[in-house]
Amino acid sequence: MGADNAALDLSGMQRAVRWYPPAYDIRVEAAPIPQIIDPDDAIVKVKLAGLCGSDLHIYRGHEDVDSELTCGHEIVGEVVALGPSFRADATGRPELYSTLRVGDKVVSPFTVSCGECHFCRIGFTCRCIHSCLFGIPTLPGGQAQYVRIPKAGGTLFRLDGLQSPSAGLSNLADSSLILLADILPTGVFAAMQASQHPKVASLLAGKPYPFGGGYVPGGSVSHGQAATALQPDDRTLTIGIVGLGPVGVCATVSLLDILAGLEASQGLVFQVVAIDPLESRRNKLQAVYDTIEPSWKGSGRFTVAAVEGGKKLVQEWTNGAGCNAVLEVVGNNSALTLAYDIVRPFGIISSVGVHQEPPLPFSGRDVYNKNVSFDFGRCPVRAMFPIALEILLKRQDVFGGVGTEASLIDRIVSLDQAVEMYKLFDKGQCGKILFDPWV
Amino acid sequence: MGADNAALDLSGMQRAVRWYPPAYDIRVEAAPIPQIIDPDDAIVKVKLAGLCGSDLHIYRGHEDVDSELTCGHEIVGEVVALGPSFRADATGRPELYSTLRVGDKVVSPFTVSCGECHFCRIGFTCRCIHSCLFGIPTLPGGQAQYVRIPKAGGTLFRLDGLQSPSAGLSNLADSSLILLADILPTGVFAAMQASQHPKVASLLAGKPYPFGGGYVPGGSVSHGQAATALQPDDRTLTIGIVGLGPVGVCATVSLLDILAGLEASQGLVFQVVAIDPLESRRNKLQAVYDTIEPSWKGSGRFTVAAVEGGKKLVQEWTNGAGCNAVLEVVGNNSALTLAYDIVRPFGIISSVGVHQEPPLPFSGRDVYNKNVSFDFGRCPVRAMFPIALEILLKRQDVFGGVGTEASLIDRIVSLDQAVEMYKLFDKGQCGKILFDPWV
Ligand SMILES: NC(=O)c1ccc[n+]([C@@H]2O[C@H](COP(=O)([O-])OP(=O)(O)OC[C@H]3O[C@@H](n4cnc5c(N)ncnc54)[C@H](O)[C@@H]3O)[C@@H](O)[C@H]2O)c1
Ligand SMILES: NC(=O)c1ccc[n+]([C@@H]2O[C@H](COP(=O)([O-])OP(=O)(O)OC[C@H]3O[C@@H](n4cnc5c(N)ncnc54)[C@H](O)[C@@H]3O)[C@@H](O)[C@H]2O)c1
Ligand SMILES: [Zn+2]
Ligand SMILES: [Zn+2]
Repeated sequence: MGADNAALDLSGMQRAVRWYPPAYDIRVEAAPIPQIIDPDDAIVKVKLAGLCGSDLHIYRGHEDVDSELTCGHEIVGEVVALGPSFRADATGRPELYSTLRVGDKVVSPFTVSCGECHFCRIGFTCRCIHSCLFGIPTLPGGQAQYVRIPKAGGTLFRLDGLQSPSAGLSNLADSSLILLADILPTGVFAAMQASQHPKVASLLAGKPYPFGGGYVPGGSVSHGQAATALQPDDRTLTIGIVGLGPVGVCATVSLLDILAGLEASQGLVFQVVAIDPLESRRNKLQAVYDTIEPSWKGSGRFTVAAVEGGKKLVQEWTNGAGCNAVLEVVGNNSALTLAYDIVRPFGIISSVGVHQEPPLPFSGRDVYNKNVSFDFGRCPVRAMFPIALEILLKRQDVFGGVGTEASLIDRIVSLDQAVEMYKLFDKGQCGKILFDPWV
Repeated sequence: MGADNAALDLSGMQRAVRWYPPAYDIRVEAAPIPQIIDPDDAIVKVKLAGLCGSDLHIYRGHEDVDSELTCGHEIVGEVVALGPSFRADATGRPELYSTLRVGDKVVSPFTVSCGECHFCRIGFTCRCIHSCLFGIPTLPGGQAQYVRIPKAGGTLFRLDGLQSPSAGLSNLADSSLILLADILPTGVFAAMQASQHPKVASLLAGKPYPFGGGYVPGGSVSHGQAATALQPDDRTLTIGIVGLGPVGVCATVSLLDILAGLEASQGLVFQVVAIDPLESRRNKLQAVYDTIEPSWKGSGRFTVAAVEGGKKLVQEWTNGAGCNAVLEVVGNNSALTLAYDIVRPFGIISSVGVHQEPPLPFSGRDVYNKNVSFDFGRCPVRAMFPIALEILLKRQDVFGGVGTEASLIDRIVSLDQAVEMYKLFDKGQCGKILFDPWV
């Protein structure tokens, strides 16, 4: 089946990566091309589909799924069919219902979002009342030649015809754009949850808590006689990153971008320690860091470390106080425990790891005694797109390549290699993989 | 020993409420008057000392304390002696070192804070590196005639000679001012952690997340094509309060104050449900609410409910979505579980309850799946004083009385009644008690 003809004939079969229960059973096989079954649907011809750490939760049988499914939730592609809701006079609905056309290039977030419920309107798009993950039994995923996108006018992000600041967009490779589907927005989200939190914002603003952090009653009231004035040391922000997989790399690059901007404009000093037990992961991040042009990583200290070394460094750098914020980008309790150990009192833990059944590894006394704040959960990718896209454009030095020492994407392969790639990826023996379903 | 003479003779013995291990053993007995042992110390003659829910943790033997102590951590009084650090030329130190005088009226927060370490300077005063609770074996508490205040230039808040906006201050009764020592700032803190959180701030600002919540990279970027515009419904904020003891009442009044201000200025609608299993506590809060003048409680819905009724109400009011924020003001796992049950996805739980050894009652999946945020821990009372004082002045209708149906303070008693009062208070058979050590 050739790529050109396939785009026109949507009635037949396609090739797809399928998972069978209970675990570790990947098959590349023929599956029906998805059809429009709801007026809000679009069918997207997949140009590239990613293999992601989150796919491994299902692969390993950790998600209690008991029927087979089509894998994948990172999708960049081209619209080949649109449901009847897409029409020029579709007013009062998300913009794409009236403007999206067959042939448009799009990225899909890893979950469906309608763009019309309260959660979507307020930007919490991953908790849309119609939310659904791609790559589950009821919603076939993107590691296939075609994929059906429900609520497509709310879910999709169109890459054609964007205004500035996205002017450079047409130069971006698909292998770069696919980072928008999940891992780059998730990295940005991890970094922003930390930088926006009032306990950190006080430092960023250089105003004692609670006056630096958003709405306060009687905002004109001052800190009173409480303390001596802020000193330069108080403007030093120490951040830890726990977990340096692809999402951890995206979180680090996003964080450096945010901090370098603040350093320049607000006289802030920062120091970042990035921790992972795996040497290959540490080396990758170091190579990425070395690639970033100096003005975009600021003048703060940056060190990549293994677990014990990282802990020690935080102690040294902060005189035992700990990190102001820790980004947890792993998804297990050892990572949450490490994050707690290295965060300072009144610090914040921004956790984007996907956590499972075990209870949180903290007692009530632990969290009370440190005045810890936590932000948990899934990235609202659709709402983070505009910001993630800015960073993607700015950081093409990092996000532009494939297969280099510093690139996030390791290789682009055929669907036929899926069985092997899942195996390698599961064992941490390769970096991020993309499937091109047409080779 | 008469009040007047005692202020002059600081060498002898005083009366004090003492606790003996292992539990439930309160004795009113003679104890040495504390002396200045560090240059930064002040000795305060106690005018009133509070009995607080937190005293019960020690009373019941839950804090693993194994030697006797002088109880109490809520103190309003008058300075009777100052260490040598207090001198007109004590520059570069917190203001009070150069300005505090014998005879000045002061409130002490329930913990010591130096005003000079990083944590104090940035406003996280309860995590001062010299932090110490009053009422532990090594720092005698305030249920006595005199109390020693360490790091007094950083710890104390002087009530005399304050500038506007505190003009009405001299009219306030000591029984009102003592609320500043702990429970009112803690209530304000509970409410502010919720109102300042970026996930709530987006609603307050009327801008989709993440653009309404503090620092964002590329802040000029817009929400993109993601969703339809915000609707009036999106500006309705639903808040739950779990636990209506004295701190819960303070949290509720503070929250209403914040929300009523926002309603007026920003077109926000809010609805509040306040939950406690105890009828007496519900009745007290209802009486307090009825006392507040209409312009300071806004036009939103407000309902006091028992646990099951409260849950049902949240469901009804929010079409099953849940509360945007929940204030947890109890300090046990049943309260944290209730807070989780009624919070909506992307909601925040502001927890000021003092939690103990049991593990947090949440799995990793629970917190991931709801995108919950938590703020835990102790109130930085010293940093919250200016804001709490504003609310105290404004809400004298609530915080001004003693022994009325709507007053927070139930009665003022002699130290001699301590044994009985601890018993009654422990069983929830009386409201908030103040000790006057001079009757
Ligand atoms: N919140 C979201 O919306 C969202 C989106 C995408 C991915 N995720 C999740 O983010 C997490 C990271 O994704 P990824 O693709 O980078 O995963 P990955 O498995 O490739 O990387 C995780 C890294 O964490 C390291 N690690 C393990 N235990 C550690 C510890 N105790 N301390 C420090 N590092 C430790 C591992 O060595 C590994 O390098 C996963 O849980 C994934 O499911 C969440
Ligand atoms: N964070 C701080 O700095 C700080 C400061 C002062 C007090 N505290 C703590 O705040 C908490 C409240 O203090 P208080 O003096 O009002 O205590 P309190 O014991 O008088 O009141 C607690 C209330 O919670 C209610 N309650 C119990 N379980 C409940 C549940 N599952 N759902 C709803 N309500 C429930 C009780 O009926 C009671 O009315 C305590 O834990 C106290 O130690 C913390
Ligand atoms: Zn939606
Ligand atoms: Zn201090």
